[in-house]
Amino acid sequence: MPDVKIIGATGYGGLGMVELLLRHPEFRIAAVAATQDVGKPLSAVWPYLEGYCDLPLHAPDAPDFLAVPADVVVCSTPDGVGMVNAGRELSAGRKFLDFSGDFRFNSEDLYAEYARRLGKDPQHKAPELLPRAVYGLAELHRDELGRADLVGNPGCFAVSCILGLAPAVGDGLVERAGIVCDCKSGISGAGKKPSPSHHYPERYDSMNAYRLSGHQHVMEVERELTNLAGAEIAVAFTPQVVPVCRGILSCLYGRLAPGIDQKRLLSAYREFYAASPFVAVKDAASPVATGDVRESNRCVVTVAADERTGTFRAISHIDNLLKGQAGSAVQNLNLMFGYPETLGLDRPAAHP
Amino acid sequence: MPDVKIIGATGYGGLGMVELLLRHPEFRIAAVAATQDVGKPLSAVWPYLEGYCDLPLHAPDAPDFLAVPADVVVCSTPDGVGMVNAGRELSAGRKFLDFSGDFRFNSEDLYAEYARRLGKDPQHKAPELLPRAVYGLAELHRDELGRADLVGNPGCFAVSCILGLAPAVGDGLVERAGIVCDCKSGISGAGKKPSPSHHYPERYDSMNAYRLSGHQHVMEVERELTNLAGAEIAVAFTPQVVPVCRGILSCLYGRLAPGIDQKRLLSAYREFYAASPFVAVKDAASPVATGDVRESNRCVVTVAADERTGTFRAISHIDNLLKGQAGSAVQNLNLMFGYPETLGLDRPAAHP
Amino acid sequence: MPDVKIIGATGYGGLGMVELLLRHPEFRIAAVAATQDVGKPLSAVWPYLEGYCDLPLHAPDAPDFLAVPADVVVCSTPDGVGMVNAGRELSAGRKFLDFSGDFRFNSEDLYAEYARRLGKDPQHKAPELLPRAVYGLAELHRDELGRADLVGNPGCFAVSCILGLAPAVGDGLVERAGIVCDCKSGISGAGKKPSPSHHYPERYDSMNAYRLSGHQHVMEVERELTNLAGAEIAVAFTPQVVPVCRGILSCLYGRLAPGIDQKRLLSAYREFYAASPFVAVKDAASPVATGDVRESNRCVVTVAADERTGTFRAISHIDNLLKGQAGSAVQNLNLMFGYPETLGLDRPAAHP
Amino acid sequence: MPDVKIIGATGYGGLGMVELLLRHPEFRIAAVAATQDVGKPLSAVWPYLEGYCDLPLHAPDAPDFLAVPADVVVCSTPDGVGMVNAGRELSAGRKFLDFSGDFRFNSEDLYAEYARRLGKDPQHKAPELLPRAVYGLAELHRDELGRADLVGNPGCFAVSCILGLAPAVGDGLVERAGIVCDCKSGISGAGKKPSPSHHYPERYDSMNAYRLSGHQHVMEVERELTNLAGAEIAVAFTPQVVPVCRGILSCLYGRLAPGIDQKRLLSAYREFYAASPFVAVKDAASPVATGDVRESNRCVVTVAADERTGTFRAISHIDNLLKGQAGSAVQNLNLMFGYPETLGLDRPAAHP
Repeated sequence: MPDVKIIGATGYGGLGMVELLLRHPEFRIAAVAATQDVGKPLSAVWPYLEGYCDLPLHAPDAPDFLAVPADVVVCSTPDGVGMVNAGRELSAGRKFLDFSGDFRFNSEDLYAEYARRLGKDPQHKAPELLPRAVYGLAELHRDELGRADLVGNPGCFAVSCILGLAPAVGDGLVERAGIVCDCKSGISGAGKKPSPSHHYPERYDSMNAYRLSGHQHVMEVERELTNLAGAEIAVAFTPQVVPVCRGILSCLYGRLAPGIDQKRLLSAYREFYAASPFVAVKDAASPVATGDVRESNRCVVTVAADERTGTFRAISHIDNLLKGQAGSAVQNLNLMFGYPETLGLDRPAAHP
Repeated sequence: MPDVKIIGATGYGGLGMVELLLRHPEFRIAAVAATQDVGKPLSAVWPYLEGYCDLPLHAPDAPDFLAVPADVVVCSTPDGVGMVNAGRELSAGRKFLDFSGDFRFNSEDLYAEYARRLGKDPQHKAPELLPRAVYGLAELHRDELGRADLVGNPGCFAVSCILGLAPAVGDGLVERAGIVCDCKSGISGAGKKPSPSHHYPERYDSMNAYRLSGHQHVMEVERELTNLAGAEIAVAFTPQVVPVCRGILSCLYGRLAPGIDQKRLLSAYREFYAASPFVAVKDAASPVATGDVRESNRCVVTVAADERTGTFRAISHIDNLLKGQAGSAVQNLNLMFGYPETLGLDRPAAHP
Repeated sequence: MPDVKIIGATGYGGLGMVELLLRHPEFRIAAVAATQDVGKPLSAVWPYLEGYCDLPLHAPDAPDFLAVPADVVVCSTPDGVGMVNAGRELSAGRKFLDFSGDFRFNSEDLYAEYARRLGKDPQHKAPELLPRAVYGLAELHRDELGRADLVGNPGCFAVSCILGLAPAVGDGLVERAGIVCDCKSGISGAGKKPSPSHHYPERYDSMNAYRLSGHQHVMEVERELTNLAGAEIAVAFTPQVVPVCRGILSCLYGRLAPGIDQKRLLSAYREFYAASPFVAVKDAASPVATGDVRESNRCVVTVAADERTGTFRAISHIDNLLKGQAGSAVQNLNLMFGYPETLGLDRPAAHP
Repeated sequence: MPDVKIIGATGYGGLGMVELLLRHPEFRIAAVAATQDVGKPLSAVWPYLEGYCDLPLHAPDAPDFLAVPADVVVCSTPDGVGMVNAGRELSAGRKFLDFSGDFRFNSEDLYAEYARRLGKDPQHKAPELLPRAVYGLAELHRDELGRADLVGNPGCFAVSCILGLAPAVGDGLVERAGIVCDCKSGISGAGKKPSPSHHYPERYDSMNAYRLSGHQHVMEVERELTNLAGAEIAVAFTPQVVPVCRGILSCLYGRLAPGIDQKRLLSAYREFYAASPFVAVKDAASPVATGDVRESNRCVVTVAADERTGTFRAISHIDNLLKGQAGSAVQNLNLMFGYPETLGLDRPAAHP
């Protein structure tokens, strides 16, 4: 029964890990840490966990936290935190999974470009670890994750886009130029920190696009697609916020490659995901909504060739906090520790 | 002070007309009709109107309703109703404005194709009137509307797409092939009739795309764009529903024409709409949300050239019930009767 | 591993049972029935269950459904259905749990009054079974439920009111006259059937009280409180609907009995629920929201004596679909089959 | 055409004034002030006002702001600001209306108690002005408002409770002891400042009671009711927050006085409000929701005697930002300047 330590346990990512691990038959939460409310039980900060997770919050760098034995450390923190903790934990023989962009890239250059988009220091703090990091999207990196001890969990938008585009890009069903990702996210994707634009009355009946000049998640998408295509892919990405709590609906567009029709698309997608238990492929006539994946680890991809205009369309539905974050993390932990991929995650959406 | 009769006064379109005309300094509501609740005051069906509009509901074809004098009849009804009423009213010397697709097309063939998409009888009931109908989008047809006595008010999605694309298509800033309209609508766009997919718990935390095989509004969009381009334009259109009440956010994509950059886009859009008081053009860095146009007749268009990928992007924000429906209708009535275009409509969004 | 058959599997109550039983370590869903969509898999009606519950829907009275072996039948149907099915199942040696009011009362007279409030036939169809029925609120009837084979699951409003008032009424901390139940419910409490008042745009920014002349759930409340008090209790009940999906917030008022203060209230409540794992008692300063119990089987009761005005206040928080319906049902099944009360239910709210 | 200066123009109260005055036929906005964003146009802070109110924001105490001529100053600011500005403006011959509690009480003692509840300095800064202040609830103080030059606009909860209880308390229809105010508010009532409990994901599917130990608005309620009754009235008050944007639904309870029935209640309420154009009285069977008053200045009061239990019930519906704040303020300005009470406010709710 592997022990897990969670750094950043009081954010939405950390809470997601706590909720999932509480019902996981194998993993056990050994200790939790956060930078605020140190000394309080987690359930004093989040009363809904009372009786379920009353572990005290440690400071992430406090000796008592570091001394708690564990098999893996999950770092659900902003960019820049995981990279200063990973080396120590790996040296101590623990596996390490990070929620930020710190270990999503294998090269210092890519990281630097990513960090610049966020206005962060482009110099990675542990560049020697980068070649060892595995990108935590099980559907594309299942085997590597089975051998990994350092995993960079993907961005939520990236999960939805990559899963929605991978079969088409990998099989050359869509032209490489002109791919567009139109992505709508619920607000939980912005984390727990209050801000004017996510204040309830401001968000109540309002939706908007943002960061039109370039969201940082696009880099993961392009890197993965480029690897699949064997040629460079650049995508136009339009992140949007809509007033739902959980859910990402990504509409993915491109030019259909010559001769590709709906039937061909559908069979390619189904084949691509045949061994992926959390991805379901639907044709254009199937009704699907993000509500169908809410609080589940599933990704449902609808493919809909618009043959009249020659447009490729795939629509990807995930819960941004599960398949887009903590659910993928547990899926990755399962693989890293040799458990069945679906262990502790195999349940449908909650409805309504 | 022109008198207006409203057919279909109890739906969202009709209520929008009632609300707007109640505060309009010139038009007067002479009589209201609906197929249900005949004989009751409108305010018995919709108590929020008590003391504001207590006119009795007539049957649309009842002699007492037909006998009420009026200068214009507004038909806010499903497809197929306006076409059987328009001829009679026009013969009686009244102007006629219809909210459905009945008079959005000037040819029987286009109408037939439109009707087929809706599963309706493709045979128009008053084909002799079609050549006389003017498409009710003031920003493109201001002069014709000033002379019109028969107006087909546009579809809400169409308003958002056409206004967002017209300058680019008209000036050749975007390539004609490969235009994509990714359109998110609030639920009021579906009208007042309850349905399983708009039942509150089903819609609460859920968004989805629908009618992927072809929404009927795309035909108006293509017709208008084709006229502007002087060459055929076909667009891929993805209607989506998100859990807001009012608002359409349309992200419009294409390939930037050679040499077109953000600066050129912005100046072309600003010039195009220089004389249009309800359209505001913003650049990519301006924060805009559908909340900024809620309960106003404004359309805000953000243009955002993605020069890295060569992608044209315009994002169009409207209130689907105002600029997308009743607001455009009042704007059209103003033009039809020689009033300033903004009369009775010149107010900002309601916030929050 | 007891087998469960579910009648009414496609409504919110039935879906709640399916979701809970899918993750229950002991119960197994043997068959599902509904009056519509017979022959389709449950997952064809509700695609989010695809791969999780693909059992075909039977007609409730079809021989093939009746022939499926089972240990218990759960009837999640409108009033009047359980009473015509219970006798047959009990005779076949199966236990029976009903979600409607059919078996919430032990006398024909009480049932008749209940049925009249709903505009239903006041004559019970299986009066001989009524004395045998146990009211399915484990916190008050734990021992009887352990011996029961026929259970009437309580109404959602009733659960929240009874749990919030029982200690005060049972211990005489509140005066018997003048008790008020001010109850706010999310819309899922109204079931899956679309209606004008729960159409998304109508409900979006709107809340209201309804059925002011007497909601049917008040009868259960008064019966249970009267039993606890040993003297007749009548309560004024104001059901309200607010635009949330899940949750009941019941504010319960009365006159504090002489000498009763906050400290006494708090200790009485804590003692009363000491052996009830799903009820938590909080004092007035603790922040609690219905979000803290969403998707959990917990009931959190805040007691807040207003000593300045002599007013007793208790505030009860539940998820109407879990502790208010399917969660209580599984809790009852656990007791009926000798399992620990919390089996399969022991998890916190989902957040956010 | 009286000129109005607004201090605190960027909050929800100030924006409400701006929106209402923009469409008011008589008042003109002369200048706007705020403590932040000084120098920017109001429309740079709130882009939805672009083209409608582009006046620059002044610092409230800047000479250029003070020098702008005006007939009345509206102070839409937190407690403590109005009291340091009122004297100067009154001396300059301007009328003054304040949105906070600064001028809701005529005595230093009552103010001190109010301030203590908010954790503020109990010493009023301009006690000599208190006797001159009029409480800005037109339905109870119409004549005084017609002569007033200093008005304390009421609290939003207070408006809903006082209007709902005044006729019953004034006529002795309800017993003086044991009155309960159960009040549900939309989140805009908390103002524009982001906070963890109003962060969208936290508030999404969650409602709660708060400040159970005593909300400051209860003091206004008790003072007004005590005046009406001619004897001291204390009420138990339970403020609650529900996830809507606008609206207060207050359920008001008490013991029916001997012999009082529904008919008597209804006629007393109707008579009481016969001359109040913004208050409508409904009986228990009328469907009413807060949506019926959203974005209007109306208050709808439903009276519903529960004769079975002897319980008085009145349910009060307002828009917290209009009748609960800026709408009442404009109604008061109308009276202060001799205009018809309804001028610029006479419009129905916006629907949906």
